[in-house]
Amino acid sequence: MYKCAIILAAGEGKRMKSNTPKVLHKVCGKEMINHVIDNIRSAGIEEVNVVIGKGAGKVQKGTESRNISYSVQAEQLGTGHAVMCAEDFLKGKKGTVSIFVGDGPLITEETVRSLTNYHEAEGCSATILTSVMADPLKYGRIIRNANGEVEKIVEFKDCNEAEAKVNEINSGMYCFDIEALLNTLGKLNNNNNQNEYYLTDVIEILKGEGKKVGAIAVDVDEITAVNSKQELSVANEIMRSRINKMHMDNGVIIMDPRSTYIDCDVVIGQDTIIYPGNVLEGKTVVGEECTLYANNRLTDAVIGDRVTIESSVVLESRVGENTTVGPFAYIRPETVIGSDARIGDFVEIKKATIGNGTKVSHLTYIGDAEVGEKCNFGCGTVVVNYNGKTKNKTIIGDNVFIGCNSNLISPVEVENNTYIAAGSTITNKVPEGSLAIARARQVNKENWVHDKYNK
Amino acid sequence: MYKCAIILAAGEGKRMKSNTPKVLHKVCGKEMINHVIDNIRSAGIEEVNVVIGKGAGKVQKGTESRNISYSVQAEQLGTGHAVMCAEDFLKGKKGTVSIFVGDGPLITEETVRSLTNYHEAEGCSATILTSVMADPLKYGRIIRNANGEVEKIVEFKDCNEAEAKVNEINSGMYCFDIEALLNTLGKLNNNNNQNEYYLTDVIEILKGEGKKVGAIAVDVDEITAVNSKQELSVANEIMRSRINKMHMDNGVIIMDPRSTYIDCDVVIGQDTIIYPGNVLEGKTVVGEECTLYANNRLTDAVIGDRVTIESSVVLESRVGENTTVGPFAYIRPETVIGSDARIGDFVEIKKATIGNGTKVSHLTYIGDAEVGEKCNFGCGTVVVNYNGKTKNKTIIGDNVFIGCNSNLISPVEVENNTYIAAGSTITNKVPEGSLAIARARQVNKENWVHDKYNK
Amino acid sequence: MYKCAIILAAGEGKRMKSNTPKVLHKVCGKEMINHVIDNIRSAGIEEVNVVIGKGAGKVQKGTESRNISYSVQAEQLGTGHAVMCAEDFLKGKKGTVSIFVGDGPLITEETVRSLTNYHEAEGCSATILTSVMADPLKYGRIIRNANGEVEKIVEFKDCNEAEAKVNEINSGMYCFDIEALLNTLGKLNNNNNQNEYYLTDVIEILKGEGKKVGAIAVDVDEITAVNSKQELSVANEIMRSRINKMHMDNGVIIMDPRSTYIDCDVVIGQDTIIYPGNVLEGKTVVGEECTLYANNRLTDAVIGDRVTIESSVVLESRVGENTTVGPFAYIRPETVIGSDARIGDFVEIKKATIGNGTKVSHLTYIGDAEVGEKCNFGCGTVVVNYNGKTKNKTIIGDNVFIGCNSNLISPVEVENNTYIAAGSTITNKVPEGSLAIARARQVNKENWVHDKYNK
Repeated sequence: MYKCAIILAAGEGKRMKSNTPKVLHKVCGKEMINHVIDNIRSAGIEEVNVVIGKGAGKVQKGTESRNISYSVQAEQLGTGHAVMCAEDFLKGKKGTVSIFVGDGPLITEETVRSLTNYHEAEGCSATILTSVMADPLKYGRIIRNANGEVEKIVEFKDCNEAEAKVNEINSGMYCFDIEALLNTLGKLNNNNNQNEYYLTDVIEILKGEGKKVGAIAVDVDEITAVNSKQELSVANEIMRSRINKMHMDNGVIIMDPRSTYIDCDVVIGQDTIIYPGNVLEGKTVVGEECTLYANNRLTDAVIGDRVTIESSVVLESRVGENTTVGPFAYIRPETVIGSDARIGDFVEIKKATIGNGTKVSHLTYIGDAEVGEKCNFGCGTVVVNYNGKTKNKTIIGDNVFIGCNSNLISPVEVENNTYIAAGSTITNKVPEGSLAIARARQVNKENWVHDKYNK
Repeated sequence: MYKCAIILAAGEGKRMKSNTPKVLHKVCGKEMINHVIDNIRSAGIEEVNVVIGKGAGKVQKGTESRNISYSVQAEQLGTGHAVMCAEDFLKGKKGTVSIFVGDGPLITEETVRSLTNYHEAEGCSATILTSVMADPLKYGRIIRNANGEVEKIVEFKDCNEAEAKVNEINSGMYCFDIEALLNTLGKLNNNNNQNEYYLTDVIEILKGEGKKVGAIAVDVDEITAVNSKQELSVANEIMRSRINKMHMDNGVIIMDPRSTYIDCDVVIGQDTIIYPGNVLEGKTVVGEECTLYANNRLTDAVIGDRVTIESSVVLESRVGENTTVGPFAYIRPETVIGSDARIGDFVEIKKATIGNGTKVSHLTYIGDAEVGEKCNFGCGTVVVNYNGKTKNKTIIGDNVFIGCNSNLISPVEVENNTYIAAGSTITNKVPEGSLAIARARQVNKENWVHDKYNK
Repeated sequence: MYKCAIILAAGEGKRMKSNTPKVLHKVCGKEMINHVIDNIRSAGIEEVNVVIGKGAGKVQKGTESRNISYSVQAEQLGTGHAVMCAEDFLKGKKGTVSIFVGDGPLITEETVRSLTNYHEAEGCSATILTSVMADPLKYGRIIRNANGEVEKIVEFKDCNEAEAKVNEINSGMYCFDIEALLNTLGKLNNNNNQNEYYLTDVIEILKGEGKKVGAIAVDVDEITAVNSKQELSVANEIMRSRINKMHMDNGVIIMDPRSTYIDCDVVIGQDTIIYPGNVLEGKTVVGEECTLYANNRLTDAVIGDRVTIESSVVLESRVGENTTVGPFAYIRPETVIGSDARIGDFVEIKKATIGNGTKVSHLTYIGDAEVGEKCNFGCGTVVVNYNGKTKNKTIIGDNVFIGCNSNLISPVEVENNTYIAAGSTITNKVPEGSLAIARARQVNKENWVHDKYNK
């Protein structure tokens, strides 16, 4: 059967206290609304329409990579009104429309699938996603008749005593038969205290018309909506816990899942050990049997097997197998590091390739360079890629030994099997097999200290 | 009505296992007793007297900035005795005295205010601050009569079976009418197993005299006392959670409130994002829309809007708007960094001003210097501010380009629009518009590597 | 009475998804099985036999330092079969054998002791270690008769309705009279669905023979077994909490025990303050009144009193009292740092001794060196210990001042009371009292910037 979905995302979110629209706040590295869109898509629903209103332009921009359509709700006149604003999207379609909320990022693909499957298998005109809560708070209550069939949804403030005691609540997410929904939307009214059109009224109308209304319940975590930054931190905690559990199930060792921060799309190999305080972001991929000591931030990094990284920042770069990084290294975008290499402490690499087996052990900067295999960079080496006007490139061959505190002034080439003396500033090509040296000879002035300080 | 307060802070705190008096242990960056004093003052009570005993000198020193008076309890003979030691403070006063405890840092300004307001509005001679606990443990029980009026406080060990079941417990904090308290103190005796004078006996004596005794209950968190370092960690957790909630309510995004450590007086702007592991101490102020990546420590730092800081330590310094700091920067006291500047990785700045738009990208030390605008510091630059005997100052103008691995030997001046060649050690003034160079020329010794290593 | 123990460690642990045998996974820095062995030994049981099977070689290697014996269970045919495989170990012995599990690392020395003491004092033939759980899940149930005596253990899947409601469960850990156990093992059969020999059947057989069977209950935490990496993280959390509580009881201040990671054998002095994110590993010893700011990793480090360390990595090294380290220092193995010294930011020390009062403040590398007292290393100094072929040693005396961005080319000696000018590369001995200088003179080329950039 044809399936589509509408996501309600027009609300202001005043309690967020933010210049960013509520649904664009991130949970585990992805905007809340994009979590919803991606899970809907994964569940096999291709066509998605988002109802936008407050901050419409920003929300469009924040979701543009998802290839969805939009409806505009200029005024916020209730959830029923929001769906009315999407009438053009629904018109002429036959099948099932699911309705989700842009500030409910914890809904899973499995639940989206269960909801539509149940709805279609049971031949319902409407199916409500519900949850059973020990303390149902101010949520709308699901009122069922003696046969257990859903009768209606009653808002908390309209509940009588018996209704208030009901533990099954409305998530605000539904499936509808598209034609049944379209027929009913016109019958909604705003004769209530808020002067709003409630989508929940559709249920009672359909029941009045003898249509079948179903409901399935899910864990309350899944329907948690985010209305404040406190709730945003709770949503982060729930999703973080899910992600970490998934990785542990796959054989990753996470010393302290509460203090490990992994974005939703990160991939990690078996037997990799993750110390606390790691932040793995974006499309990062980590191989097997790696050790991530505490406090790395890896963003869109691709890390081979058996790599060790400690207290380092790696951005949009690749690190080959068996290489060690850090502690305290900074690898900037467009860097490719080979295997069996060493990028040590207080080292920055930027937009460079570093060959297999090359060691850059400490206090070194390499930028805009191609470095061969089995080189050794002395401590304090600087690849001087900037002259104040332009950035230039340095080419370094294989088996090059670069003495400590040297400068390589780009553009410059250092050929294979060369040796640069410590303390040299290299401005010209170093031919294969050469020693390059550029420093003053040492002079000792005897008794100088005595004369200077002890007179 | 006149209000004053007494804080009991004479106890030894043996279970703390510490050379520091118990009440000087810190919770979220402030000594426990100073939390109590500050909240009392915020609630409008100016005159505060602290009863000191064990470690009296240290407690006086630890609270000296608060402008309070002290009473000395030389021997620890019970809470009643502690208040007797403060009789000189109370004598001749009319009005309300509140009694708090120096190891109860979680009491809030609102509760101090509610307690005294209730006490005065109800015309009580004594008002007890109580709490209702599911498991009341070994706390003293509040015994009320059939009308719900407080009759007495019974210590847990003296409870009969019925009394032991009472869930309302005594926090050890009270309000008294000063004259009623003074009249009663003389009637306390130490005819008990501990040979101590109990302040709780005052309640029964007042009741016996027909006086009115009230009680108000607060959340048990507020009356938590700290008697061990385990309990200190719990108090830290509770206060941390309160502080973080307050910032989230103000629109700050805190990815993981459990792992974010913000002192009680820190101010943070809306939409600033705080990654886990940040420690914000003292009087730190952070602007709006900043990004604090993981693991910074900011102490008494003032950070402008839209600043990014990562894995850095910033102490008693200012950072202007749009500037980026780190990863791995160390900014030491008395530093002022302009706006749109960059303080990069492995950079230390100490007691220096850095102008707007200046870039200090990596592996650089700047100490005791004034640096102008739009300068560029090459990697490995050192401002040599110390000659082994004295620290000297360096003045650098605007638009200065300093080559990598250079030394500027202080005192020295580098004028506007100058250029220092990489690898130079600068000892003399560089006049406006000049290139300064101080390095040896490169010599290539061909076949040297072959000759040396392959023979 | 003679006591010995068998540890069952032959299982595969498929759910761990690992190439490492399950029992070798670490909890708070020690392999699970070694926790069990060490606690058994601490409780006074010397002879320990481990039943190995899957990954036998790795488990032997992982426990070889413990001086134990092994039995091999080639096929996994049940817990009874596992003990049968250890018959050779038991044969001819009289006394008590305790049986523990290699994946149950949380059992304490006290419980091992209580179990054997109870067993022997009560004259039992078998004693079961049990636990009472609110929700007993799928654990085997302890069935007692009307007198409260243990009758048998029933596996969950074989329980009738009444048995399933029993809250006391079998931990899978026991004491047996050795002869009684040996006599019974031969009577076990595998007539069950799994075709396995159950050790639990021993209980019913012994009861049938009129023997006495006891049971003692412990907290459920102690009997938690680890079958997945999720459960491994839970075991880490429980043990971490125990270790941190122990240190807090000893007077250590731990700001956030949930985010502080201390291995089981670490020793820490009173009044030391530990910020969150510290990882203290191996045999690390930290003195009194130290401050460990956030995010250090100390492995096998010995730290004196009143030391401050921040955001640093210290491996297999010693740091003397009153010294400060970091932020962002890396101290590698075989380093000894004196007292009142300073190892500052972006400093690496490797296999070196640093004398008392010496300052290595920033951006410096010292490797393979002996450094005297009261020296001062300028920023950017490199001890060049590697020439591309060999590592050599540098000897530096007392009261040496080393200018910034200097190189000391090893092997080289710098005698007492010497001064090295900034920017020098030192290749020869610097005699006592001398100034050594090796740099080019500064030349200013006036108007160069104007000519170059403004034409």
